Amino acid sequence: MKAARFHAARDIRVEDVPAPGEPGPTQVLVKNQFCGICGTDLHEYLGGPIFIPTAPHSYTGGQVPQILGHEYSGVVEAVGSEVTSVKPGDRVSIQPMVSPRDDYYGRRGQYQLSEQLAIIGLSHPWGGMAEYSLVEDYNAVPMPDDLSTAHAALIEPTAVTVYATHRGGVKPGDSVLVAGAGPIGQLQVMAARAAGATRIFLVDLNDNRLEMAHRLVEGLITLNPGSTDVLREVRARTAGGVGVDVAFECVGAEAPLGLCLEAVRRQGVVVQVGMQGKPPALDGFTLTYKDVDLRGSWCYSTLMWPQVAALIASGQLPAEKVVTRHIALDDVVEQGFEALLDKAGTQLKILIEL
Amino acid sequence: MKAARFHAARDIRVEDVPAPGEPGPTQVLVKNQFCGICGTDLHEYLGGPIFIPTAPHSYTGGQVPQILGHEYSGVVEAVGSEVTSVKPGDRVSIQPMVSPRDDYYGRRGQYQLSEQLAIIGLSHPWGGMAEYSLVEDYNAVPMPDDLSTAHAALIEPTAVTVYATHRGGVKPGDSVLVAGAGPIGQLQVMAARAAGATRIFLVDLNDNRLEMAHRLVEGLITLNPGSTDVLREVRARTAGGVGVDVAFECVGAEAPLGLCLEAVRRQGVVVQVGMQGKPPALDGFTLTYKDVDLRGSWCYSTLMWPQVAALIASGQLPAEKVVTRHIALDDVVEQGFEALLDKAGTQLKILIEL
Repeated sequence: MKAARFHAARDIRVEDVPAPGEPGPTQVLVKNQFCGICGTDLHEYLGGPIFIPTAPHSYTGGQVPQILGHEYSGVVEAVGSEVTSVKPGDRVSIQPMVSPRDDYYGRRGQYQLSEQLAIIGLSHPWGGMAEYSLVEDYNAVPMPDDLSTAHAALIEPTAVTVYATHRGGVKPGDSVLVAGAGPIGQLQVMAARAAGATRIFLVDLNDNRLEMAHRLVEGLITLNPGSTDVLREVRARTAGGVGVDVAFECVGAEAPLGLCLEAVRRQGVVVQVGMQGKPPALDGFTLTYKDVDLRGSWCYSTLMWPQVAALIASGQLPAEKVVTRHIALDDVVEQGFEALLDKAGTQLKILIEL
Repeated sequence: MKAARFHAARDIRVEDVPAPGEPGPTQVLVKNQFCGICGTDLHEYLGGPIFIPTAPHSYTGGQVPQILGHEYSGVVEAVGSEVTSVKPGDRVSIQPMVSPRDDYYGRRGQYQLSEQLAIIGLSHPWGGMAEYSLVEDYNAVPMPDDLSTAHAALIEPTAVTVYATHRGGVKPGDSVLVAGAGPIGQLQVMAARAAGATRIFLVDLNDNRLEMAHRLVEGLITLNPGSTDVLREVRARTAGGVGVDVAFECVGAEAPLGLCLEAVRRQGVVVQVGMQGKPPALDGFTLTYKDVDLRGSWCYSTLMWPQVAALIASGQLPAEKVVTRHIALDDVVEQGFEALLDKAGTQLKILIEL
């Protein structure tokens, strides 16, 4: 079958690989249909391997060359003898985390925290950027009739922002700042609104992305720190002039983290959604003085898929607004990865149609 | 009257100053009795002025030369015409925070968060290291009969650790790590035990302080990172080998913050109690990956005084165990500040008897 595999930084190849065989007792064979390109994939393309193992993963055996793709949907082709949750023909969204069910975190339903965690499309023999994939039954989540298969591929990145919204404790009427207007930042804006946030500020250095974001939610305030005093604007436009209740760092860099810490009110919450590649210098004095919570937000609970599907299907979180292009698998490098690197920032979420 | 005033770094003078006059309508004149020397006072002595204003404080007018002392108790000498909460002869513990009652935070009872916050003994005309002080009625909290006036001077630093325990969300049966065996770290050990923490680790580079700490609570595990692999020990001695539920950074430095982040389990909580003088490099990648909360903890709620008094009086939080010496005001520099700087670390909390 055809698959896009990561070999090394700047070396992703669309090539023929052996298709998966028959599913084992608890496995599901999926005919992949739509797969998004994630910022994590882009980081692997630019500077990887980062998450991708160079030796066999202890739990899944996944390693370079790795089939990419962990944001995807498809149709069940075949199921193993013990699988009761889905049947051939079912449309599914892939929850890509694979881990033991019975370790410390697994016994608590916190599968995403496992110290043996693997991710389909990053540290697993299969992935979404291929014609087929072979996954565990718990990875293949059946989709409701009112959610299209294309939209089902958006659940994974949307779940990241819904979970971050849980982590931030966003309440109806809260004011929120989102730093970073990439796909995750833009989904975060919609997730915050879905939780009832009223005043939402989106901050980015790219005016084009800020402009694109105005279609996301009513009344969004976009601010470019290159041309605006963001903190003054936030103070001027929040109740009591004290700053926002919750800020989301969706870049993974020192400056936006510092901005978030300054923009929240005292006893506010900063959620670290982006992955900080280098340790940022943190103004720990202000963290303590302002009594602020800085909360890491790791992916999502794997149990959230039905909730997020319902948010997208109902229109309360119209995740499809971040999709800027559909492409074919053969074009994934030029029309996908390279297009996302374009400095103009015209592309957000690119879906591969399989 | 006699008072110890901060003039500049390494320049604290015990000198005669004018005594306060009659209390205004909402004020209370206190005959000071016991006053602790705080780590904050020590920081001012070494490198101040830090919190002490060099121009009149916008809300209180306090400035250099500043009477020190914000951990203290005394007896009410006189009250203003509108004061109903205390009367002459009442024993009181001073809650040292002064701020508007009607700003954004004040209206919410979060007086400690006010952007105009002043602290008696740091940014206020009066302080505890003097014979008398003139405070607002809300600063003078009457003490129960079962708490001695000496112990009443310990409420302020104890409140810091009880509040941090609230911030950390410590629950009965939790495992806890405290980084730093100074007075705050040692009180933090007792506050965590008062909240029901079972396994408690105390980490410091000073073996003498670790040795002193064994009298605080039953079963304390002390670890010196200079001679022990702290993370290995913590993993080996926590349920599931995953690390502690909550860690308290009570030093204000990069290394112990990093240790706390590594020592907590996934979805654990790190509380930043110490004031970070310089911005530490934070492993933000791990913060996100482990889904950890890093929570600043600013002092306490000013409304906690009766709760903390009850914890000390009942013996559930025997704060008096950190007191290593009583001294006279005249000796505050040599027997107080200089003694606390002794590298052997034999002194913890020094109380001035007035």
